[in-house]
Amino acid sequence: MDFTFDWSRAARTGLPEAVLCSAKSPAQITEILAAAQARGARLLLTRLEPAGFAALDEGARAGLDYDPLARTAVLGGKLALADTPVAVVAAGTSDLPVAREAVQTLAFNGEGALLVADVGVAGLWRLMERIEEIRACRVVIAVAGMEGALFSVLGGLVSAPVIAVPTSVGYGVAEGGKAALTSALASCAPGVVTVNIDNGFGAACAALKMLGAAVPANQER
Amino acid sequence: MDFTFDWSRAARTGLPEAVLCSAKSPAQITEILAAAQARGARLLLTRLEPAGFAALDEGARAGLDYDPLARTAVLGGKLALADTPVAVVAAGTSDLPVAREAVQTLAFNGEGALLVADVGVAGLWRLMERIEEIRACRVVIAVAGMEGALFSVLGGLVSAPVIAVPTSVGYGVAEGGKAALTSALASCAPGVVTVNIDNGFGAACAALKMLGAAVPANQER
Amino acid sequence: MDFTFDWSRAARTGLPEAVLCSAKSPAQITEILAAAQARGARLLLTRLEPAGFAALDEGARAGLDYDPLARTAVLGGKLALADTPVAVVAAGTSDLPVAREAVQTLAFNGEGALLVADVGVAGLWRLMERIEEIRACRVVIAVAGMEGALFSVLGGLVSAPVIAVPTSVGYGVAEGGKAALTSALASCAPGVVTVNIDNGFGAACAALKMLGAAVPANQER
Amino acid sequence: MDFTFDWSRAARTGLPEAVLCSAKSPAQITEILAAAQARGARLLLTRLEPAGFAALDEGARAGLDYDPLARTAVLGGKLALADTPVAVVAAGTSDLPVAREAVQTLAFNGEGALLVADVGVAGLWRLMERIEEIRACRVVIAVAGMEGALFSVLGGLVSAPVIAVPTSVGYGVAEGGKAALTSALASCAPGVVTVNIDNGFGAACAALKMLGAAVPANQER
Amino acid sequence: MDFTFDWSRAARTGLPEAVLCSAKSPAQITEILAAAQARGARLLLTRLEPAGFAALDEGARAGLDYDPLARTAVLGGKLALADTPVAVVAAGTSDLPVAREAVQTLAFNGEGALLVADVGVAGLWRLMERIEEIRACRVVIAVAGMEGALFSVLGGLVSAPVIAVPTSVGYGVAEGGKAALTSALASCAPGVVTVNIDNGFGAACAALKMLGAAVPANQER
Amino acid sequence: MDFTFDWSRAARTGLPEAVLCSAKSPAQITEILAAAQARGARLLLTRLEPAGFAALDEGARAGLDYDPLARTAVLGGKLALADTPVAVVAAGTSDLPVAREAVQTLAFNGEGALLVADVGVAGLWRLMERIEEIRACRVVIAVAGMEGALFSVLGGLVSAPVIAVPTSVGYGVAEGGKAALTSALASCAPGVVTVNIDNGFGAACAALKMLGAAVPANQER
Amino acid sequence: MDFTFDWSRAARTGLPEAVLCSAKSPAQITEILAAAQARGARLLLTRLEPAGFAALDEGARAGLDYDPLARTAVLGGKLALADTPVAVVAAGTSDLPVAREAVQTLAFNGEGALLVADVGVAGLWRLMERIEEIRACRVVIAVAGMEGALFSVLGGLVSAPVIAVPTSVGYGVAEGGKAALTSALASCAPGVVTVNIDNGFGAACAALKMLGAAVPANQER
Amino acid sequence: MDFTFDWSRAARTGLPEAVLCSAKSPAQITEILAAAQARGARLLLTRLEPAGFAALDEGARAGLDYDPLARTAVLGGKLALADTPVAVVAAGTSDLPVAREAVQTLAFNGEGALLVADVGVAGLWRLMERIEEIRACRVVIAVAGMEGALFSVLGGLVSAPVIAVPTSVGYGVAEGGKAALTSALASCAPGVVTVNIDNGFGAACAALKMLGAAVPANQER
Repeated sequence: MDFTFDWSRAARTGLPEAVLCSAKSPAQITEILAAAQARGARLLLTRLEPAGFAALDEGARAGLDYDPLARTAVLGGKLALADTPVAVVAAGTSDLPVAREAVQTLAFNGEGALLVADVGVAGLWRLMERIEEIRACRVVIAVAGMEGALFSVLGGLVSAPVIAVPTSVGYGVAEGGKAALTSALASCAPGVVTVNIDNGFGAACAALKMLGAAVPANQER
Repeated sequence: MDFTFDWSRAARTGLPEAVLCSAKSPAQITEILAAAQARGARLLLTRLEPAGFAALDEGARAGLDYDPLARTAVLGGKLALADTPVAVVAAGTSDLPVAREAVQTLAFNGEGALLVADVGVAGLWRLMERIEEIRACRVVIAVAGMEGALFSVLGGLVSAPVIAVPTSVGYGVAEGGKAALTSALASCAPGVVTVNIDNGFGAACAALKMLGAAVPANQER
Repeated sequence: MDFTFDWSRAARTGLPEAVLCSAKSPAQITEILAAAQARGARLLLTRLEPAGFAALDEGARAGLDYDPLARTAVLGGKLALADTPVAVVAAGTSDLPVAREAVQTLAFNGEGALLVADVGVAGLWRLMERIEEIRACRVVIAVAGMEGALFSVLGGLVSAPVIAVPTSVGYGVAEGGKAALTSALASCAPGVVTVNIDNGFGAACAALKMLGAAVPANQER
Repeated sequence: MDFTFDWSRAARTGLPEAVLCSAKSPAQITEILAAAQARGARLLLTRLEPAGFAALDEGARAGLDYDPLARTAVLGGKLALADTPVAVVAAGTSDLPVAREAVQTLAFNGEGALLVADVGVAGLWRLMERIEEIRACRVVIAVAGMEGALFSVLGGLVSAPVIAVPTSVGYGVAEGGKAALTSALASCAPGVVTVNIDNGFGAACAALKMLGAAVPANQER
Repeated sequence: MDFTFDWSRAARTGLPEAVLCSAKSPAQITEILAAAQARGARLLLTRLEPAGFAALDEGARAGLDYDPLARTAVLGGKLALADTPVAVVAAGTSDLPVAREAVQTLAFNGEGALLVADVGVAGLWRLMERIEEIRACRVVIAVAGMEGALFSVLGGLVSAPVIAVPTSVGYGVAEGGKAALTSALASCAPGVVTVNIDNGFGAACAALKMLGAAVPANQER
Repeated sequence: MDFTFDWSRAARTGLPEAVLCSAKSPAQITEILAAAQARGARLLLTRLEPAGFAALDEGARAGLDYDPLARTAVLGGKLALADTPVAVVAAGTSDLPVAREAVQTLAFNGEGALLVADVGVAGLWRLMERIEEIRACRVVIAVAGMEGALFSVLGGLVSAPVIAVPTSVGYGVAEGGKAALTSALASCAPGVVTVNIDNGFGAACAALKMLGAAVPANQER
Repeated sequence: MDFTFDWSRAARTGLPEAVLCSAKSPAQITEILAAAQARGARLLLTRLEPAGFAALDEGARAGLDYDPLARTAVLGGKLALADTPVAVVAAGTSDLPVAREAVQTLAFNGEGALLVADVGVAGLWRLMERIEEIRACRVVIAVAGMEGALFSVLGGLVSAPVIAVPTSVGYGVAEGGKAALTSALASCAPGVVTVNIDNGFGAACAALKMLGAAVPANQER
Repeated sequence: MDFTFDWSRAARTGLPEAVLCSAKSPAQITEILAAAQARGARLLLTRLEPAGFAALDEGARAGLDYDPLARTAVLGGKLALADTPVAVVAAGTSDLPVAREAVQTLAFNGEGALLVADVGVAGLWRLMERIEEIRACRVVIAVAGMEGALFSVLGGLVSAPVIAVPTSVGYGVAEGGKAALTSALASCAPGVVTVNIDNGFGAACAALKMLGAAVPANQER
């Protein structure tokens, strides 16, 4: 096959390359896995739906650590997790797959996370019960669909950077996540930043970069 | 001129006809005022910008009670205000013109209102300081631009109906009020209803109808 | 599972929590039902398609009162219905599922409704034949797809509040319900309010709040 | 100047060429007028705002019959009007400029029109008072902004073809006329056809073609 | 079932009611057919996909004259066709289903049509070869997807009214028919009118009204 | 000022850098002109409205060759024009400013052009009268607003590459040029390519590259 | 069947007609193939998905040279390929089907191509490693989804014309290819031109026309 | 006036409150300034256009440090700047106002910044000349309009977090900044985060939070 993997990405940007599986065939994924194994490289696969995972060769599947809720798979074994103060805060049950994708991406890089679920602002007390735990974190990833009001409320309550991940949970004007996305971008709480709809992977990558932001990139961390 | 005023609207729908001035010429407005005066009818004018008010004949202006912030004018005198429990809650200073339009429309119909301003959710404590006053009201009109997170937070805190009025305050993805509008429609708080962007007049009309909803329309209220 | 149910919602907002099933797995729904039964709580499930209902455990299904047209299910038994003057007015046959969702939500809360179907404005006489019945109601829920002209016509004929529910019935420019939604929001009839596309549940919640609007929330109703 | 006038249009399509002035300079308009006068041709100018008319040479202005409300001008004199049964029905006062553009285009071609104004559906009785006059016409041009509910109501009441002209009258979701346009296209009343927003000229051209539709184009009319 | 058929539509608007099957269940369609048969009424069904037709009772299917390309069915027998000069002009092979829906709707009302296919403007000579036949018609229905250039080219070549039917044929920016729709509305050829995307039925209804436009609606035709 | 001019662009891409003036202040433009003069470089300025030109220093203006219709200015003198077979074809008078921008950009690079104006497809004979001249050209730039049907008609008539330039000429659905743009992209004529709305400069740059496409970039042309 | 093939297209525009299969039935495709075979014409089929190919008659399939990745089929045999300097540059693995469609279209016309894959700008060194090969080409086709940054980077690095093909690879705001399309149109690199989303066929047609642009169309090439 | 300033914001979120002046009247701004001075608070004003600044009282103006390019004003004096490794990278001259707003916001909080201007990717060498300086920074703010390709290129070259600020610089499809915004959100470079269009203030606030992310919020920094 015709692919040119960016093996030097980690050195250049601090993030290892990952494989977005949603638009790739089983044959393409298998070939990529073989190339990674040949190099002894660890690899993170995202958006690998259960049906896609089942379509891989038994040999390919055997080497992968697969999470069907997050739709992620890890080649090359899990790392021990540091006790990283990243909070992943999800508004509703339906936002959990995206939240888990963020958690697994952090874990692939050896960072643990605090997952706080079901704290949508229509029942504000649920968020308030957990806010001190969240305030103790150094980065907050907020995951919400529908109208995405969680982003602004959180942004006004914590001093850590808040990365908003709008999800495609919703119908009518919220279909596909556009309502939550515009809420995140138009937030009245300064300092909220946003990634693409459903992009839990990207939010975790940004969090990893932010954790590293404390020291210049050309120094040891 | 060629116009057919709907003088029977009050009898039919409980709401007197009002005049949306934004797309009418001074000559048209003057003619409408003369027709109303000839019938001895009271009349509410909305979206009458200061320049438009100034462009009216001195005679026409003399009979009007004009509020430049709300951009409303009343012909035929103000009513004494009942102590109506309608709350008009505005997220920011820039939302005040729309909030005032709602207050003036209620006043034209003899109903007072509690105006609560500058309680955007990025500083949640400001809303919490006033929430008991708002909870005591029978209808809540919420006015917000930007991302409109106020609608969902309020909707989860009060048992009264919440009428969301998205405003055109904002820029970028929030320009023109679309972000706040979709937030209102996609709200995770059940029972929030919405009117068009900047439509403080319509929200007040809906509130008037809701206050009347306690008794059937064909009975005395 | 990781969920935090908002059991206090009824006390706070006058509306019991309901479960939107469309983005939840059978396992998640089963777990929620078990939690509700353990508390002895009644529960309303919405957007539960026949296939989703069939995918539940036989035990879970046994406790539910399921309406396949409305796609609602009730746990904990139906209430006797008050003779509530809420009219649910649907433009066409294809709008009936959404109209029924509103009716079932009212019924879950013990309120009856007058369902008036097939009164689209292209045959205006059909609406006119039923208008006196509708005028006798205290709240009107109007359900229409396509161009949604019903909202404005009704809004000009009744003194009760009109809650517009645009439906996703239509094709071309009406696909997904956007044309009906903008008609509702731009209505020339003052006092029409709107909820999200296909949101029969939300419209009923708003109606319940409006019926309660006759007395302050902190008093007995 | 570099322009190629389509002098044969009338022979080919039954419609004389007209000049859309909105994107043309006074110099370009003057040149076109001179060319038309040199040929002894009559000419209709549309979208000629009062400021644009005032910017023309006094000589050019002298030869024109200008209507500031319709923003049209006619070169070469008016025709006597046939008693044509075309109804031009406008929802509100603000829709009159577009309605008048249609009336003037018909007049330029020697056809009279019945102008019915201020019959928006929020006060349905106003339309019903005039409906028999409208029903007697052979073509109906309906002009409305906001939510455009007039198109469907009219479409269900008359047997003549209904040409919808959405207008850019409105704000929020109705800004620019999109809400009225989608209402016209999605109309539940069969047989309603639509032209571009504010296109009173185009609607009149279509009406002229429809009146001619009674006899094949290659026969005498 | 709860439906109110508009049996008087033909008398009021000159068009018999038809049934849009796309959002109706087989049970609903069967019930409507039974009601029509009970009255001895003829009926046109549109958007009845082959799978939907197959899902009807054998008895219901037996009484229908079904056209799988047009996706129409007729109850009550076909009429002899008048030699009506309506041209239905389709740009490409993929536009034929919509063009046939128009032809069948005309046929249901006893009017024949000239179907001209595969005359997209990228090969202009194909249209030019047929243009005299088209010019002899009193109404032209133009059916095109993609960029819809056919509408303007035809509009400049014939004196009959041109009814544009944009189709959902296309991909990328043309997906769903929006590109063809805006081409029709923005056409530089005056007198082109438009119906909703894929609405061959509506175009035929408009054509029927236009053919009747030659004589007042309250006279014999 | 803080600017880094790309003086090596010509060597790298075959196109000299140009200055888009629309978002620059007179001071910024003056500074850029001084830097260019100091290097003895020729420079093309685009989107320099008459008011912007007038706001420059008299000294700066003196060195410029300004075309108010095209809104371009040339520093450093015009070149003698090669007899280049590039056709610039404009649909209407209102499209001339964009067409002229393309012509001036070609001229700045020493290439002449054939300007064919006022050949919109509503009067197809006008285009047919000029088509042989256009067919003799090696590249065709087509400039049209409204519905942009010219692009597809031309694309089907010539063997040269056709570069579509949609213009912002139009109103309603054509406002801002979106309708013409989607027509260009969705064209049924293969081989039509598109640039941004009103981008006459970009179309000319592409034409220059295409003329050079006959020989590899690393050889002499 | 009712189709009018444009057999003279090659003579008129330099491009043979091709068949877009996505909206055609197997019967229609078979009929078209038979007609081509009867004339002894070669034919290119595009957007023929594997399932669509499998649905053709065995006889029809036998005569076709099918490429499942490109989803193209060729009737009438392949040509020997000239050593044409066209580069087809794809950003990612998921863009390969569209890139291959371009390569096969060029091959159908006897032109070879240099395919450069997996050179997305997030790993810029991958593009830089291949840039000299690309610079040696006379036309560059750039294929990218997501944010489409490749178009501008390439446009600034080569002197050949760059034809951007946005692909529908992406999710969230990139869904359907709109983000990549607007990037191509808004490119800050002058001389980039664009075709519709996923239109590898159209890009290849444009490239063929550009290669021919070196000599006037009415001369021998 | 009716305003409730959020004086505790700094304690809660680490960011002092700022005043967005674009939708406020001179009277409102003057009143806010007086309140701040009464408390001895420092204050940052953003989006204060030169005309708005000139409209303030001379007294109010005297206390402000105004930057007309950034459109910011500072009340209460500037801080000495730390040598903060934040890079603010702007694609073009027209993006400088937004870039400067970010720089001034950082300065208000005592942090310096490295401003790198005019490094758009169409001339990639300009960015490459400065890349080592940028790589030495701990946070990168990237400011670009048009197609926003800078975001992805930078995101692939540095290990620091990249905050994209799309600007409203552009025309046609790029008008208002939507093209650059979607490029940022759809970026193929992992870890790029985005703020609203033109929101240089918000990007600087996010950078301040990220710099603080190295230590938990409830510890000393």
